[in-house]
Amino acid sequence: MGRRGTTTSAKGPAGPGAGGRRDSEASKAAIIRAARYLLARHAHGDITLKAVAERAGVSAPLILKYFGNKDALFSHVMSFESDALAFLDAPLADLGRHMVRHLLTGQAERGADPILRIVFAPLHGEQGDILRANFRAQVVDRLGERLSGADAGLRAELAVGTLIGLGVMYGIARGPRLREAAIDDVTDRYAPVVQAFLTPG
Amino acid sequence: MGRRGTTTSAKGPAGPGAGGRRDSEASKAAIIRAARYLLARHAHGDITLKAVAERAGVSAPLILKYFGNKDALFSHVMSFESDALAFLDAPLADLGRHMVRHLLTGQAERGADPILRIVFAPLHGEQGDILRANFRAQVVDRLGERLSGADAGLRAELAVGTLIGLGVMYGIARGPRLREAAIDDVTDRYAPVVQAFLTPG
Repeated sequence: MGRRGTTTSAKGPAGPGAGGRRDSEASKAAIIRAARYLLARHAHGDITLKAVAERAGVSAPLILKYFGNKDALFSHVMSFESDALAFLDAPLADLGRHMVRHLLTGQAERGADPILRIVFAPLHGEQGDILRANFRAQVVDRLGERLSGADAGLRAELAVGTLIGLGVMYGIARGPRLREAAIDDVTDRYAPVVQAFLTPG
Repeated sequence: MGRRGTTTSAKGPAGPGAGGRRDSEASKAAIIRAARYLLARHAHGDITLKAVAERAGVSAPLILKYFGNKDALFSHVMSFESDALAFLDAPLADLGRHMVRHLLTGQAERGADPILRIVFAPLHGEQGDILRANFRAQVVDRLGERLSGADAGLRAELAVGTLIGLGVMYGIARGPRLREAAIDDVTDRYAPVVQAFLTPG
């Protein structure tokens, strides 16, 4: 991933306003990527704003402008809130299929999916517990609240477990058959497994 | 985990011979744990035998005695061979149940399961590709060879995916309902999901 400046990019047909918006979104994304990279490798307290800025190819004041301060940036990085919104955005009867497709599309198009970050919790030291708590509250419990019947909380954990495993097999273990299979085919096979935990019987 | 000496331990009722064996197994396990810990945090080339020895609480010559050299130790650490033997050790008709129970028992008793190490592949740099290749050859493909019917390779990847996800939910995300549920109960719920990929229809 190349470094990007923070001024209007010369490429693209849109006017300077759109270019500026695009560029500011790209800068924010670069800052978040840099913070995630560093948090996965260093203790929270050892990471300076300058180090994040350098890795992201932006200035430290720009980070302050976008995120306020270092703690607010890290809290944003540790959140699953915006991921969960899109991940859980389907009627319950179709939710298994939606989550599987959403995860596979994310992996295929961006090399990342909405929930895979949880597997790196052990690297974050004390921050790892924040990541875990966010994950459980923002993804697992939010799913569990939508389920009815016995053991909704356990069933939500098992459903999310199957999805994490699919993400690890695709993005980390890099299973070659999974990666070359059509998303529709994998969704047809895997969605019923997830759905059976959501709406059993 | 405390440090252990390499001489005969004073505790336990067994004679000195049995104590020595126990102690040498404990030392080997400590060496492997130390190598895994360091490999997850440092580049392969930056890890010295001395660092492994210090972390394991043994002498560097003892590592050489047990493993030959540093590369042989790391190759052992990167292998799933002995894990896969026990993990896949059941008749096909009962294999889903066996793998789920084996994984949950490992998590509950040792805080680790036979396949969870694959999720740390991204931390290992070039060594990560060795870990991935070993995982696919020693776990996934070995399972796939036992399956019949269409898409056995893909079904093996999906089955192992469900199991990785269960391990991550237990050991990394630390889902509270999963951790407090009885292993028998979770096995009853989860084994059919795995088995359906092994022997569909």
